[in-house]
Amino acid sequence: MSEKQISKAVISRLPRYYRYLGELMEDGVERISSNDLSVRMKVTASQIRQDLNNFGGFGQQGYGYNVKYLYTEIAKILGIDRQHNLIIIGAGNLGQAIANYANFEKRGFLIRGMFDVNPRLIGLVVRGIEIRSVDDLEQFVIDNDVQIAALTIPKTKAPEIADRLVKAGIKAIWNFAHTDLNVPEDIVVENVHLSESLMRLSYRVCSMQEEIESKKEEKKGSKPKK
Amino acid sequence: MSEKQISKAVISRLPRYYRYLGELMEDGVERISSNDLSVRMKVTASQIRQDLNNFGGFGQQGYGYNVKYLYTEIAKILGIDRQHNLIIIGAGNLGQAIANYANFEKRGFLIRGMFDVNPRLIGLVVRGIEIRSVDDLEQFVIDNDVQIAALTIPKTKAPEIADRLVKAGIKAIWNFAHTDLNVPEDIVVENVHLSESLMRLSYRVCSMQEEIESKKEEKKGSKPKK
Repeated sequence: MSEKQISKAVISRLPRYYRYLGELMEDGVERISSNDLSVRMKVTASQIRQDLNNFGGFGQQGYGYNVKYLYTEIAKILGIDRQHNLIIIGAGNLGQAIANYANFEKRGFLIRGMFDVNPRLIGLVVRGIEIRSVDDLEQFVIDNDVQIAALTIPKTKAPEIADRLVKAGIKAIWNFAHTDLNVPEDIVVENVHLSESLMRLSYRVCSMQEEIESKKEEKKGSKPKK
Repeated sequence: MSEKQISKAVISRLPRYYRYLGELMEDGVERISSNDLSVRMKVTASQIRQDLNNFGGFGQQGYGYNVKYLYTEIAKILGIDRQHNLIIIGAGNLGQAIANYANFEKRGFLIRGMFDVNPRLIGLVVRGIEIRSVDDLEQFVIDNDVQIAALTIPKTKAPEIADRLVKAGIKAIWNFAHTDLNVPEDIVVENVHLSESLMRLSYRVCSMQEEIESKKEEKKGSKPKK
């Protein structure tokens, strides 16, 4: 199987498949048909068959998919079958929310440390994870073979910290700072821009309201005139 | 101008334009050419012209875009030129991180209240926002004309709260719970699934490593054999 040929669109859907398959496993389901999965996930069965056929040989006609096998294979493709060392820069509410999310560890993301500039936070421990001074950042990254850094700091500080992380040998930045980072091409940046998400929500609310209004208007218009 | 005809892809890029235009305004820039904006945003100038031409007449050949006008028009399209009342369900770290993000208010999202089941949190005030009991949820939504609810609660509690919100008349759910919500079609759900974002990052890190490895192999292979 060549993973290279899987389209970006399919890849972007894999985490959702992974989540549903995980829930099925928790429920003790061993096999599932594309039709049953389709009902659960609210996508068409043909979409599911197309997506999962990319991995070849998981499903058998009339027999369904082996849930555990598929779950394991998707984990391999997503690279969550191995361990990733992660640090969090910024120990405010958002940083602490991430530190408290134990599920990341189940998926192989081990939170090795948190960093902040605030002397009041430095030395505190969140769920076993010590908050350290950002002065110690580079040495910690090297000593602990850290690949991923979550940036939960204000956008004004983000570019400088990103530079330092890259120089220290980090492979990827999970960027919550509300700015785009300038990093070399071989550094992965995954952005989570919350205000952009909220704007998309706002757009969709407005569109929905317009649609509802125009349907009302249509209804009025279609009433007999007399 | 018909907003209906703007493609989803363009809409999804608008928040990023809005952010850059906002920064330009802060820097006192009044006009900008598609070329200059292209350099800043790292997208092609032709993409920018195509995207912004959707709104018609903003740019003039050789004269550039009026930053403030474009900023205002995009705000209108995104529906952030008006006020949205928002509540946060779940006053843990993530809920508090959102409550503390003052920028949302600048974009018209007014956080009216926070809700939790934890008696230790109820009654506390975060940046002027009181944490209330979820028992008071429905009445509060009605009394305060709340349109948007951010759900920062565990996935097991999310479906029940979503149902209650819909019955109380909410228009949109900003869903941070790691599950898909079953709501009527006219309710907007914008999902922020952090672990799916982290899995996409993981996939990209693994692909990048494979690419780097295979380039190394190629180099080795291209060396003269003797």
